[in-house]
Amino acid sequence: MDSYPQQCVIALDAMGGDYAPLVTIRGAYLALQESNGKFDILLVGKQEELLKIIEKEKIDFPLQNIVNASETIEMGDAPTTALKSKENSLAVCAELIKQGKAHAFVSAGNTGAVMAISTIRLGRIEGISRPALGTIVPTLKNKCLVLDVGANVDTKPNNLYEFAVMGSVYMQEIFGVKSPKVGLLSIGEEDSKGNEVTIAANKLLRESKLNFYGNVEGRDVLKGEVDVIVCDGFVGNVVLKFAEGFLHFLVKRFKESAEKSFTNKLRIGLAKGILKDILKVFDYQEYGGVPLFGVNGITIIGHGSSSELAIKNMIIRAYETHQHRIVERIKDAIQSFHLSTT
Amino acid sequence: MDSYPQQCVIALDAMGGDYAPLVTIRGAYLALQESNGKFDILLVGKQEELLKIIEKEKIDFPLQNIVNASETIEMGDAPTTALKSKENSLAVCAELIKQGKAHAFVSAGNTGAVMAISTIRLGRIEGISRPALGTIVPTLKNKCLVLDVGANVDTKPNNLYEFAVMGSVYMQEIFGVKSPKVGLLSIGEEDSKGNEVTIAANKLLRESKLNFYGNVEGRDVLKGEVDVIVCDGFVGNVVLKFAEGFLHFLVKRFKESAEKSFTNKLRIGLAKGILKDILKVFDYQEYGGVPLFGVNGITIIGHGSSSELAIKNMIIRAYETHQHRIVERIKDAIQSFHLSTT
Repeated sequence: MDSYPQQCVIALDAMGGDYAPLVTIRGAYLALQESNGKFDILLVGKQEELLKIIEKEKIDFPLQNIVNASETIEMGDAPTTALKSKENSLAVCAELIKQGKAHAFVSAGNTGAVMAISTIRLGRIEGISRPALGTIVPTLKNKCLVLDVGANVDTKPNNLYEFAVMGSVYMQEIFGVKSPKVGLLSIGEEDSKGNEVTIAANKLLRESKLNFYGNVEGRDVLKGEVDVIVCDGFVGNVVLKFAEGFLHFLVKRFKESAEKSFTNKLRIGLAKGILKDILKVFDYQEYGGVPLFGVNGITIIGHGSSSELAIKNMIIRAYETHQHRIVERIKDAIQSFHLSTT
Repeated sequence: MDSYPQQCVIALDAMGGDYAPLVTIRGAYLALQESNGKFDILLVGKQEELLKIIEKEKIDFPLQNIVNASETIEMGDAPTTALKSKENSLAVCAELIKQGKAHAFVSAGNTGAVMAISTIRLGRIEGISRPALGTIVPTLKNKCLVLDVGANVDTKPNNLYEFAVMGSVYMQEIFGVKSPKVGLLSIGEEDSKGNEVTIAANKLLRESKLNFYGNVEGRDVLKGEVDVIVCDGFVGNVVLKFAEGFLHFLVKRFKESAEKSFTNKLRIGLAKGILKDILKVFDYQEYGGVPLFGVNGITIIGHGSSSELAIKNMIIRAYETHQHRIVERIKDAIQSFHLSTT
């Protein structure tokens, strides 16, 4: 993986996502418009189905870039399902990377299945015990990467340390943050506060060469004091989904309020644009997906309900991750930051 | 504790809270206005300081109800500080209960210290391994009690089960919910999803006589499908504080937007009332505090920044908890729901 061909090739799981394959094809088309020949896209999925859509929608997509995968992993399938056959779109994408025919793999499909196939087929980076899923959150200052948000539960202190290394590399390379500040999500600012795992992780992070800020609390997540927040995937997932539910709650309440009276409707109507602008930053479509950190290759995982814009952004994200050689940077960092204590 | 005198007496830690003792005295006064002789309040704190304020503010508070406590536990003190002396306001409140001179203990002070003194001095209810702190959250339907939100970390499955029993009793007795639905906070709806502890807790809850709804996810917290949500205190605390930070984020963004242009200012000004109404439900002042569930007596803990309204509501809450004999109901429930498996 250390020498790439001139052009970056991205394998897109055309069957993954709630609105696939229509939006994945459209997203791929949009991405190609912006590629300027810098990257190419392989559309992986049921060939016949894809061709039909391309024809019907009159999408100008290079037909030779369609790679057939006769099976599809559904959203409700067990994560291991993808491992059982070589004919599903996820397995085909992973195989394209293994064979050097593609450099990155993008999917808005079954997250568990994408994680499983990536971890097993691409393998883990040496020194990383568990891959992690990150998400970019908006804050009052800059963007912040929170990881893990669901790939792992019952994490150990050294997992959290590894997440911190990977997150730091990503924020530095992709967002140009010099010496990213790392926060450890806990329930008290003092080093001694938290649960068994975070207290031990705090110690590891304090002893490391990372720019460790210290513990951050739930209320600090959107403040933007740090660039990377590490946490157990259970906690990260609950918080991420709580934020989603909170937005839903607010929108519902505004709608109910508008229905109560004409004056309310008018007032809310006038403020709607502002409200939308404020909440827009929480729209994952804008950012697309994030890499599955720690696998020995590039896997970008997106939200199931990704739109064509989200798919396009995921592809751009994959290209950037490839250009910035994030996988190599993580390999270097985990070696150079290697703790004498572990 | 099984036979109460006619009138309920509430010991208020007058020194606890960011704005104490001024707002605690005012809150006590407000509560007395509503008591109609149903309860009485003992104001516990530095007598001289309290008397000065009462005089200066011309508050009509019965002076014989002031109980001197020469020391004060500060917000930053270690939880165990309160246990080291008998002269601090928290220790005096607990002692009043032990001596039968008061039936409930209310404090907006150092949460850790209030928990420590309550647990040690009042003891735990038999069958409850760890006390839990709950919070009432607004939802799209009815109110929901989330516990634990910070009293415990590294909880075991049986702790979560006990929280479910206590939460069910509370919602039934105080909010009149028949057979409260209990949700287990996890990262997937299926029983098999979660971390080691939640998967085991799910099994315990399924086997119990409780009205167990199943796992709920972060996005379900504000939906209102369940009446009680149980979780580890680390997770509960992170989510609770995240919600606080989210509100702060929204308010800050609206202010920034209003400052950008006169039109924006006007539009936001018009919608302000509606926005306030929607966000008001998240104001803990409205509800006051919740009991520290599981201690053998009534302890109501409030937010450090409690206003006089919050203090008043905490006192009312203490009275209701006493009237509904919540401690006895929990004792009964934990016996009758006792699992053969534990």
